Amino acid sequence: MKSKRLMITLIVALAWCCASVQAQTLNLMPQPVKAEIGSGRLVIDGSFRVALDGYIEPRLEAVAARLTRRLSLQTGIPMPAGLEANPGKAALVLHCDHAGEAVQSVREDESYQLDVTAQQARLTAPTPVGVLRGAETFLQLVALDAQGFGAPAIHIVDRPRFPWRGLTIDVSRHWMPAEVLKRNMDAMATVKLNVLHLHLTDDQGFRIESKKYPKLQELGSDGHFYSQAEIAELLAYARDRGIRIVPEIEMPGHSTSWYVGYPGLASGPGPFQIERKWGIFDPTLDPTREETYEFLDGLIGEVAAVFPDEYLHVGGDEVNGKEWDTNPRILEFKKSHGMKDNADLQLYFNGRLLPIVQKHGKKMVGWDEIFHPGLPKDIVVHSWRGPESLAQTARLGYMSILSNGYYLDFALAPADYYRVDPLGGAAASLAPDQASRILGGEACMWSELVTPENVDSRIWPSTAAIAERFWSPREVTDVDSMYRRLAIVSRELDWVGLTHHSSLPLMLERLAGMQAPDALRTLADVLEPIKEYKRENSREYTSLSAYNRLVDAARPASEKARAFSGMVDHWRENEATIRRQLVVWRDCQESLAPLLKSSALLQENAPSAEDLTKVAKAGLEALDHLDSGRPAPQAWVQQQSVLLDSATKPHAELMLMIVPPVRKLVEEAGKGSR
Amino acid sequence: MKSKRLMITLIVALAWCCASVQAQTLNLMPQPVKAEIGSGRLVIDGSFRVALDGYIEPRLEAVAARLTRRLSLQTGIPMPAGLEANPGKAALVLHCDHAGEAVQSVREDESYQLDVTAQQARLTAPTPVGVLRGAETFLQLVALDAQGFGAPAIHIVDRPRFPWRGLTIDVSRHWMPAEVLKRNMDAMATVKLNVLHLHLTDDQGFRIESKKYPKLQELGSDGHFYSQAEIAELLAYARDRGIRIVPEIEMPGHSTSWYVGYPGLASGPGPFQIERKWGIFDPTLDPTREETYEFLDGLIGEVAAVFPDEYLHVGGDEVNGKEWDTNPRILEFKKSHGMKDNADLQLYFNGRLLPIVQKHGKKMVGWDEIFHPGLPKDIVVHSWRGPESLAQTARLGYMSILSNGYYLDFALAPADYYRVDPLGGAAASLAPDQASRILGGEACMWSELVTPENVDSRIWPSTAAIAERFWSPREVTDVDSMYRRLAIVSRELDWVGLTHHSSLPLMLERLAGMQAPDALRTLADVLEPIKEYKRENSREYTSLSAYNRLVDAARPASEKARAFSGMVDHWRENEATIRRQLVVWRDCQESLAPLLKSSALLQENAPSAEDLTKVAKAGLEALDHLDSGRPAPQAWVQQQSVLLDSATKPHAELMLMIVPPVRKLVEEAGKGSR
Repeated sequence: MKSKRLMITLIVALAWCCASVQAQTLNLMPQPVKAEIGSGRLVIDGSFRVALDGYIEPRLEAVAARLTRRLSLQTGIPMPAGLEANPGKAALVLHCDHAGEAVQSVREDESYQLDVTAQQARLTAPTPVGVLRGAETFLQLVALDAQGFGAPAIHIVDRPRFPWRGLTIDVSRHWMPAEVLKRNMDAMATVKLNVLHLHLTDDQGFRIESKKYPKLQELGSDGHFYSQAEIAELLAYARDRGIRIVPEIEMPGHSTSWYVGYPGLASGPGPFQIERKWGIFDPTLDPTREETYEFLDGLIGEVAAVFPDEYLHVGGDEVNGKEWDTNPRILEFKKSHGMKDNADLQLYFNGRLLPIVQKHGKKMVGWDEIFHPGLPKDIVVHSWRGPESLAQTARLGYMSILSNGYYLDFALAPADYYRVDPLGGAAASLAPDQASRILGGEACMWSELVTPENVDSRIWPSTAAIAERFWSPREVTDVDSMYRRLAIVSRELDWVGLTHHSSLPLMLERLAGMQAPDALRTLADVLEPIKEYKRENSREYTSLSAYNRLVDAARPASEKARAFSGMVDHWRENEATIRRQLVVWRDCQESLAPLLKSSALLQENAPSAEDLTKVAKAGLEALDHLDSGRPAPQAWVQQQSVLLDSATKPHAELMLMIVPPVRKLVEEAGKGSR
Repeated sequence: MKSKRLMITLIVALAWCCASVQAQTLNLMPQPVKAEIGSGRLVIDGSFRVALDGYIEPRLEAVAARLTRRLSLQTGIPMPAGLEANPGKAALVLHCDHAGEAVQSVREDESYQLDVTAQQARLTAPTPVGVLRGAETFLQLVALDAQGFGAPAIHIVDRPRFPWRGLTIDVSRHWMPAEVLKRNMDAMATVKLNVLHLHLTDDQGFRIESKKYPKLQELGSDGHFYSQAEIAELLAYARDRGIRIVPEIEMPGHSTSWYVGYPGLASGPGPFQIERKWGIFDPTLDPTREETYEFLDGLIGEVAAVFPDEYLHVGGDEVNGKEWDTNPRILEFKKSHGMKDNADLQLYFNGRLLPIVQKHGKKMVGWDEIFHPGLPKDIVVHSWRGPESLAQTARLGYMSILSNGYYLDFALAPADYYRVDPLGGAAASLAPDQASRILGGEACMWSELVTPENVDSRIWPSTAAIAERFWSPREVTDVDSMYRRLAIVSRELDWVGLTHHSSLPLMLERLAGMQAPDALRTLADVLEPIKEYKRENSREYTSLSAYNRLVDAARPASEKARAFSGMVDHWRENEATIRRQLVVWRDCQESLAPLLKSSALLQENAPSAEDLTKVAKAGLEALDHLDSGRPAPQAWVQQQSVLLDSATKPHAELMLMIVPPVRKLVEEAGKGSR
């Protein structure tokens, strides 16, 4: 009896283990908490219908219609839009227990359970938002194989790790029309993100209509702002996708655009113009005048009425203090109030700001700088500074979200972002109650160097990897698995209308002028923009610059170079493929050189193209040496090393990403390790 | 004195000749009547501004804004949207003499003159529509070269050859949402087409809202129809682009969808359902009942009120007459009216229809079948039958337009369409006054086998070649020049939002399932769907079929195969490139075979992939023989010939397009002609 029980236990354990392994091979991103694969497969064909069960509301009807439309689009199979009235006859039943929050908050229940059998799929969730999350999982389960389209039989139980999973889009430095936000919200929903943080105001533009202070947008936006009607439409679009929109009205710095229309608000004398450059600028709200707070009361009241979210982001970062140090009235104010520095003055400002925000029914979010003990415990600190500051905030009993490590404008690789954990670093040692105050994080798309044309390609697919970090259990950290699934999800994002793939061929065609862009693609595919703030420091960019160069087209992370690098790690098995690839790179110069010469925009890329040829040749020679079975001469190794060092240098803000794997081949050849 | 004059004449002639040659190298499509290249270049940069001059109306302001937006998009250079008030300071001045027609007609003056110097571009036209045409020419002049973006100094005088230059889109067989029509109108405007003919009704769907007879769309469209408000929006969009929209309400045949809601109109007993198959069907209006004409009076009155165009297309083709031959009442009617056949009955029907059309202020257009002498001379015969019928109509004093030879659903190559001339064939021998009655033509996109996803790729770029046939002087017939310019215009069409390029990668990703689609692209790029009606005859397609196979993704004309064929024509100069290409085709099987096997949708394409490898091998062997300097053995030639014959056979409705050029290599090798 005992041994039988043991055997059953073993079998169950084995089955669970196999199921887990299989679940790893699914294309889900983010990974669910629990996924047990069953046997059989739900066939997806033209008879696919959705039924609603339990609590029903328009959001659920909308998700059913959207799911059917997307499934039809992704499979190419016509499917009628209407709902199936009889749940027994539907391929997918969406069951919702009850209504969700009237205004979605961090406390919203997003959990769901999904059961797929060969007969039917059943998605059950307490709230409509849970149904939304599960619907995305169902869509990701559907795949084409040798039998056709279908979803594997599976039992999934899922809920998010963090309640605040966001994306910041800076719509001030470069204007992003509403359609950019809509398609990005669709993409966010695909990977279960739930906060769109709009950085609405900055030195370069005031991007939201104020009816009370219309000169804000009339003089401060070049005509590029969201009307309140458009905001209402975006909010409805967001709610339909289970996304909160958190508005940021940045103050007291980063606010030049305000003063074009209302110079009296500034600490400096003016006159003011919309800022065209990037950086930290002097114009700052005057915290010493009562009129400032009257104005803020009006403005925040208006913004608070437009956005239903419980939080309002007030920015608060990077006040350089120059105006506060030169205005005699402000100097006098600081002195008479016993303030020792500008930090004290900003503290005073925040102290005045907070009751205004509260008066209008909002809780305050702000960047690290706003924080000081004594603030109410319902504020949220948004950390751009890093884990130490995050942990410290949590220890003091405050809530926070992390963006340090998630700056998309740094143009890092998905894996770089994926490795950052809101509960990593200094936060790893927090007690559970402290850790629970870290609500999650936000990927940040600062828009100095992006335009509506290429912004998707900077946000995605990295943000899908970040979304998994925010949603999936802490233990989900396998980078190879992430990359495999990211490739699939990245294609799924094409279907929701994202341009992260489709913009590249267009930009390359533009660069190529009258020539065929094929060879240019070969080059672009192995280049990456230089990282972090290196581009901004490399030349004087402004909001009037043309972002139409190869560096603007090239993707932040070269998938081609990463794949090549992976092959080189096992070069013995992949030699033929590696050789074929190297030949393509070596030979593309023939068509590339005249192409680059003929285009004013591409002439700066000639050195990169030359490096590509040279590095490819070095790789081919290395393979020849390896094939010979004898170690390559040290003189040759030395020569290649110099060449590779030189090819490591960026040209026109672009780095050639095949240098490290070719260096590896050269080093192997030096060892003669066949 | 005399010799001096001669010399001047010679110099002028020479200059004109050089200018003509240079004009050939421009990227204009359609080619203008006259283009003289000057010296210098107008630089296009962020300072670009448009000014309006002369007569001004909202359409002109709209074209200025649209032109600036497109220029900014195509160059990637930010350009403010506003107009320049001072023409002296603008880069481009649009001068319009006077207002155009209140409702654009075939008589609208579309001529323009465009003068570009290094300082300024000046576009002059009598009417806003002329300005629209010239604006497209200006955009096509702008190119990127080693100096940057600019337009060459040039003097262009231009006007259309034919006044009716159209595109028919069948929105009945497959529903095409308004956005499909909008992007196609943008594309039409790019190549100066001026008529969008909407085939609004057919057996498979009644696609326009009737307020008088709502069951037409309610029961006859699966919910897919244009509301009258949408039509109004489309009409405004069209007028802004100098496009007339001609509605077609097809009768008395091709009308099953009408009878689902109004069975009493049919000649047969019913009951009726929306037709799902393709072909010619029995349900036909009953021409013997007065109620039919009362209904048509109501319906045509409604349609005539919605569409302002002077013409209304009433279809009239392919009445199979079965219901007319079986309904006793109709048989009796024919007998009592002395009608010898159904042609007589249709004549009677048309005779009743015409006054209804006229009563509502419209002139009638119909397919060949409606024509008979005795009709008023203001009708237009739309010829699907061909040049002989067209010429005959013209001789009898009637106006006509040609669509025979322009059927886009035939999936022919651009050159095939380009060679068809409305004044070719039997029409070539018409006297000038007769010839002038041939108003032009229409490319036709019948939609049995296309969906909104791939429809653009069937219409374009071929329709740009057809547009040149309709606009440019008769002598513009150089196919090589056409293809060179078509490639550039085809890219321009990407920027106006057409999906003729961008849909392919998406469809291939769908087909590839979880695999990388690269190898599939290699195969797809050398395949073409079988032509004319062969696909429809090859299997039972319906409106419920999934058009998601490789044949639906593959382009009607393989550019890759055409380019390869061109290289093979001069194989001695291109041998290295040819060889490289053949190696890619030979080797792609390695990754292609498992890919095809893993996808239920691609398994049918395995024979094509195998043929590709075999044919590529044959080509490589042929090159080896040619390199050897000796004729290839006849046994080998024979063997390859059998192989190539076999590879000529279509698989899964797809043809391998590299067979003919490889056959050429094999034949050369047989001759040993090095």
